Amino acid sequence: VARSETLTRTAVAAVGIPVALAAVYLGGWVLGGLLALCASLAVLELFRMSATRGAAPLAAAGVAGTAALVLAATFDPAAGLANPLLPGALVLLVLAATTASIWTHGVERQPLLSVSVTVFGAAYTSLLLFGVLLRHLPGIESAWHGTFLLFAPVVLTWLSDTYAYFAGRAWGKRKLIPRVSPGKTVAGAVGAVVGTVPSALAYTWVLGHWTTYRPGWVEAAVFGLLVSVAAQVGDLVESLLKRDAGVKDSGRLLPGHGGALDRFDSLLFTLPLGYVFFRWVVGV
Amino acid sequence: VARSETLTRTAVAAVGIPVALAAVYLGGWVLGGLLALCASLAVLELFRMSATRGAAPLAAAGVAGTAALVLAATFDPAAGLANPLLPGALVLLVLAATTASIWTHGVERQPLLSVSVTVFGAAYTSLLLFGVLLRHLPGIESAWHGTFLLFAPVVLTWLSDTYAYFAGRAWGKRKLIPRVSPGKTVAGAVGAVVGTVPSALAYTWVLGHWTTYRPGWVEAAVFGLLVSVAAQVGDLVESLLKRDAGVKDSGRLLPGHGGALDRFDSLLFTLPLGYVFFRWVVGV
Repeated sequence: VARSETLTRTAVAAVGIPVALAAVYLGGWVLGGLLALCASLAVLELFRMSATRGAAPLAAAGVAGTAALVLAATFDPAAGLANPLLPGALVLLVLAATTASIWTHGVERQPLLSVSVTVFGAAYTSLLLFGVLLRHLPGIESAWHGTFLLFAPVVLTWLSDTYAYFAGRAWGKRKLIPRVSPGKTVAGAVGAVVGTVPSALAYTWVLGHWTTYRPGWVEAAVFGLLVSVAAQVGDLVESLLKRDAGVKDSGRLLPGHGGALDRFDSLLFTLPLGYVFFRWVVGV
Repeated sequence: VARSETLTRTAVAAVGIPVALAAVYLGGWVLGGLLALCASLAVLELFRMSATRGAAPLAAAGVAGTAALVLAATFDPAAGLANPLLPGALVLLVLAATTASIWTHGVERQPLLSVSVTVFGAAYTSLLLFGVLLRHLPGIESAWHGTFLLFAPVVLTWLSDTYAYFAGRAWGKRKLIPRVSPGKTVAGAVGAVVGTVPSALAYTWVLGHWTTYRPGWVEAAVFGLLVSVAAQVGDLVESLLKRDAGVKDSGRLLPGHGGALDRFDSLLFTLPLGYVFFRWVVGV
């Protein structure tokens, strides 16, 4: 990585992180709107990638469905998954996309694959909606509490990536799964897990000193392990989809950071995991 | 249609209709299990069709997800769409299918298209779950009442098809949309709608004489119109997917009746419509 690119990356992060923190703290429609925007950009990148494989997704319906899913969660975040707007939005998307394809796609433009990518793209990228659900868990005691819960999977995902990078650089020899992602090593994957477990313990320890929640050490350690594994799986999934499409970055949203999907690939897996942990294991 | 095929069709209907009626009357897991089976067969047909377009769907995950969605609705039908198991099952399918594709599909077997068809197929064919929701609407007064509500879109769909057939044969000249479905005519489509409206009025009139529901004539007429349109759209969607795959029937489940998807294509559109009508317009 060239020096100037490192500077650009740092500058983007210096702006992006405070903006993200403010949106998460404010929560509600500010956070929901930002996540709907991010998911919409990510799904458009996925649609563009799928074109190299002959699909012609219904972009307008797909983006509308993706944003609708995130905003549906934002409309009543305390309801969590018991929100009829979530299956409602997906059913509407399935019916609208298939109906529209009769006229937009005929038989010439791969209707089955195109409709499939449209619906899958919305279901996949709208997993960001778990960020809103985490921020507004019914048992949160304050805006900072909700912010801290949402940042648990976010910070641990970022730490897991960082541990993987340094462990891989220091000890990496054997490749993890080179045909999917040539840079990743077994040492990097192991280092990520080994580093993320104590990080999760520290994170939940702070949470326990500050809220009514008393962390179970075993559950926190298992959470750290699962977040690191999920973050790496989410990264591999996106690497696979990018290699399938023959692109290096999913897009060019942020200078030095690649596309939206590059930024959020791991969070699509770790945010749902964070929700399951804090909602049903910790019971917030 | 040859005489022997007509006989076979009639024989299959003579067995199938009483079985379907018994399952609907019994409701609960009997109906949910039967619909889960039908949706699973339909999704497998869709997967086989997608293979002609280069996709290699994760069949086991897709069938499990399809059945899980229908059975999730059956677990608590009174909750309707406010059932956390519905989005839960879909999220699990998205995460499981993408994760599995890292190992099962690598970059060689079209992972993006294959995962997309897997998830779309489950979302599309599991629309049959609206049958369970209709049968067990929270306001039903008896098993027969629930049966009668579920059969409203079923019977009107069947009548709409029948009107389309005879109107098309009697007056059909101008083709409706020949590149998607060469046999359909404008006269058939119009005849279907014109016939289904009074049929819907008659059906709801019987319902009104027999339950506490008093039908609004306008809402019943609009319902008949929308069912006929939705039935025809659902039929066109499946015709499009079959032409895309280059097959005449989706499968050979029932002698003389084609595949499961051929049988249920219209119901995937009219059952959700029936649910919306009886749940939110009529208020059962």
